[in-house]
Amino acid sequence: MRSQVNIGILGFGIVGGGAYRVLHEHADAIASRAGCRLVVASVADIDWERPRPLLPPDDVRTTDSRAVIGDPEIDVVAECIGGVSPARELVLGAIEHGKSVVTANKELMAKHGSEILDAAMAHHVDVEFEGSAGGVIPIVRSLKESLESSRVEALIGILNGTTNYILTRMTRDRLPFDEALRQAQERGYAEADPSDDVDGNDAAYKIAILASIAFGRRIHIEDVHKEGIRGITPVDIQYADEMGYAVKLLAIARNGEQVELRVHPALVPLTHPLAAVSDEFNAVLVRGDACGDVMLYGRGAGALPTGAAVVGDLINVARNIRTGATGRVVCTCTGEAYARAIGDIVAKRYLRMSVKDQPGVMGAIATVFGEAGVSLNSVIQKGSRGPVAEIVWVTHAGPERDFTAALDRIRALDIVDSVECIIRVEE
Amino acid sequence: MRSQVNIGILGFGIVGGGAYRVLHEHADAIASRAGCRLVVASVADIDWERPRPLLPPDDVRTTDSRAVIGDPEIDVVAECIGGVSPARELVLGAIEHGKSVVTANKELMAKHGSEILDAAMAHHVDVEFEGSAGGVIPIVRSLKESLESSRVEALIGILNGTTNYILTRMTRDRLPFDEALRQAQERGYAEADPSDDVDGNDAAYKIAILASIAFGRRIHIEDVHKEGIRGITPVDIQYADEMGYAVKLLAIARNGEQVELRVHPALVPLTHPLAAVSDEFNAVLVRGDACGDVMLYGRGAGALPTGAAVVGDLINVARNIRTGATGRVVCTCTGEAYARAIGDIVAKRYLRMSVKDQPGVMGAIATVFGEAGVSLNSVIQKGSRGPVAEIVWVTHAGPERDFTAALDRIRALDIVDSVECIIRVEE
Repeated sequence: MRSQVNIGILGFGIVGGGAYRVLHEHADAIASRAGCRLVVASVADIDWERPRPLLPPDDVRTTDSRAVIGDPEIDVVAECIGGVSPARELVLGAIEHGKSVVTANKELMAKHGSEILDAAMAHHVDVEFEGSAGGVIPIVRSLKESLESSRVEALIGILNGTTNYILTRMTRDRLPFDEALRQAQERGYAEADPSDDVDGNDAAYKIAILASIAFGRRIHIEDVHKEGIRGITPVDIQYADEMGYAVKLLAIARNGEQVELRVHPALVPLTHPLAAVSDEFNAVLVRGDACGDVMLYGRGAGALPTGAAVVGDLINVARNIRTGATGRVVCTCTGEAYARAIGDIVAKRYLRMSVKDQPGVMGAIATVFGEAGVSLNSVIQKGSRGPVAEIVWVTHAGPERDFTAALDRIRALDIVDSVECIIRVEE
Repeated sequence: MRSQVNIGILGFGIVGGGAYRVLHEHADAIASRAGCRLVVASVADIDWERPRPLLPPDDVRTTDSRAVIGDPEIDVVAECIGGVSPARELVLGAIEHGKSVVTANKELMAKHGSEILDAAMAHHVDVEFEGSAGGVIPIVRSLKESLESSRVEALIGILNGTTNYILTRMTRDRLPFDEALRQAQERGYAEADPSDDVDGNDAAYKIAILASIAFGRRIHIEDVHKEGIRGITPVDIQYADEMGYAVKLLAIARNGEQVELRVHPALVPLTHPLAAVSDEFNAVLVRGDACGDVMLYGRGAGALPTGAAVVGDLINVARNIRTGATGRVVCTCTGEAYARAIGDIVAKRYLRMSVKDQPGVMGAIATVFGEAGVSLNSVIQKGSRGPVAEIVWVTHAGPERDFTAALDRIRALDIVDSVECIIRVEE
């Protein structure tokens, strides 16, 4: 039995620094849990001039990532660089050198997870990636090692902390999107260029990773339909609230002959546990045939939570190295996944439009809906603003295609000024 | 590498039957996940006459549990009998025969977990018990294998589905306790003798198991302070709601020099995610230094959810057997736990009393609180019922001892008819 496992950390930013701090502060407890000591033997970063709260000793720091992945003394590499290049080459290189890998890199795992896991199986090493999809929420391990006795029918997640924080501010303080985004940037929850978060890319990576594991199928990232939250206004959030809904950016995956994969804003009933997930928190609901509904909730980002996820993975890899059991959890996402076209999904929809304030308008629009086969659940019309009135419709569940066809005809009506906002409703 | 792992199931009731069904229906998917086939080689029960939805084949059924634990062909024993005897002897016997064990038996693990895990370590086998604390919620594995890089400061759980169902009915339908209990019994959520659930024993077993893992300390079940929900009325739930709280039966464990272990009804802010846990659902909030707040939610009972938890454990044990890594997760609950006396805990309290409807009453009571060092947060007095008025107090956080002393003096006042209900408030 090994009494020590040596770790090389690549990248000493938020995630790498957080993992280092957790390993440093909890060294004894971690050794007890793992059954052997986890020693940080090497940390590579290209810039050691940046000030940091906690620095590794001189003889552990390096600027040469390739030396770390080739070092025969190192057992596990924690890839904390982010992005695809050079992370992909370094991870594959580490695996080829017989090292296990831990990563929190969602883009890498969403785009190249199959290639990396195939390489890991070929070399009998572990690749663990808990931090890549939901930060500290133990969803990856739960899908692989706790809930895998169920057939998972659906995953519904709030997987992006930035957009959830923005929507929470828009809801509680009735802020417009731009102002809520500015506050998120001030608090460090959003990047200067927020597009990866607010346009849904980040959540798409995560739902692709989780669906691959849960469904045992290879998910292609380009199959995930994406809509962001830039078009949501406090007015829509207010209407949603009056009807008993919260507005959330959901990441949804549904299993079946075709797989549904989509990230978009949605109305969620206020009584649903996902509606209570506020601020920068993340949550994932797993719906399985035997397990029923299981939900996991926690911080999806941040140095310590993501660092804790990386260290949790490192402890598990160390257990496997100690007992000679690397590769004990095999990758089973081998089935093909045929994605359902967004036009084929069935959903309820919320729709807000500006119309001419004159008699017969509501009837004319309702008639177009009816002719297109779109059944209406409710309608709200409040006082008019001069010659323009605002109407909010909620449809019954129906095919996206019919709804889009109706909408094209409604937009062409001269009594309709504009369609302001469309949001799907998930019950 | 082994291509097959043989399972013996002891007890074919709700849990054993559920596990058998999950193994049966998902055999191929489970084999793919585990990397080898899981074969039910033997099922022992004392009564095979009872009608069941799915029966194992004749040559698999037996009435002889001891033959199963001694059978050299069997690799893993799933103990699904419940209770302490004969489960304890059978589990220890299986371990002595070199077999790994899976169990969902909360009473056994809460009372004899240390003895069983010590035996498992001595024989290098696995004992897995995910289903024993929170049903299908993957909380045991998450504490052992995902969140173990954090120091856990507190666990706060809704760990009993029966009482949560009863409190949900009392809240939504304003039913008295007895009627809500009757409905729970009709729906199969409560036993004919409901005392294990409604008096807090069941939740106490579960929090003792979870605190042992999370804190790395041996928790003694008799150290858990228990109060049930028989004293809660719809009136209290109504007052709580007006003040922005839900009433839940919480199981709380706090880490520290002394460990706080308590199960009692509590007022939980309606904005807190635990307040949204309704009906028969369970949830556990884990508060750790690095991971922050992580919450897991799901069904705490039922044939398929608990069966799914047992099968999840069986798959993990099979992975360890296949790779020769049984015993890879060591038990680390070796520290002593000194329990804090209930008189020493600090809490806010809700207090409803009937008093004489005459001038000066509120002042007299408030004076007694003040003299005892109990600081008051708010008071509600609504219309009187004839000569009697009802007052509801909420205190600031303070030591239990001071509060109890004040209460003794208040009860002795002749202007106080009776103290109707006391509930702690957890923020």
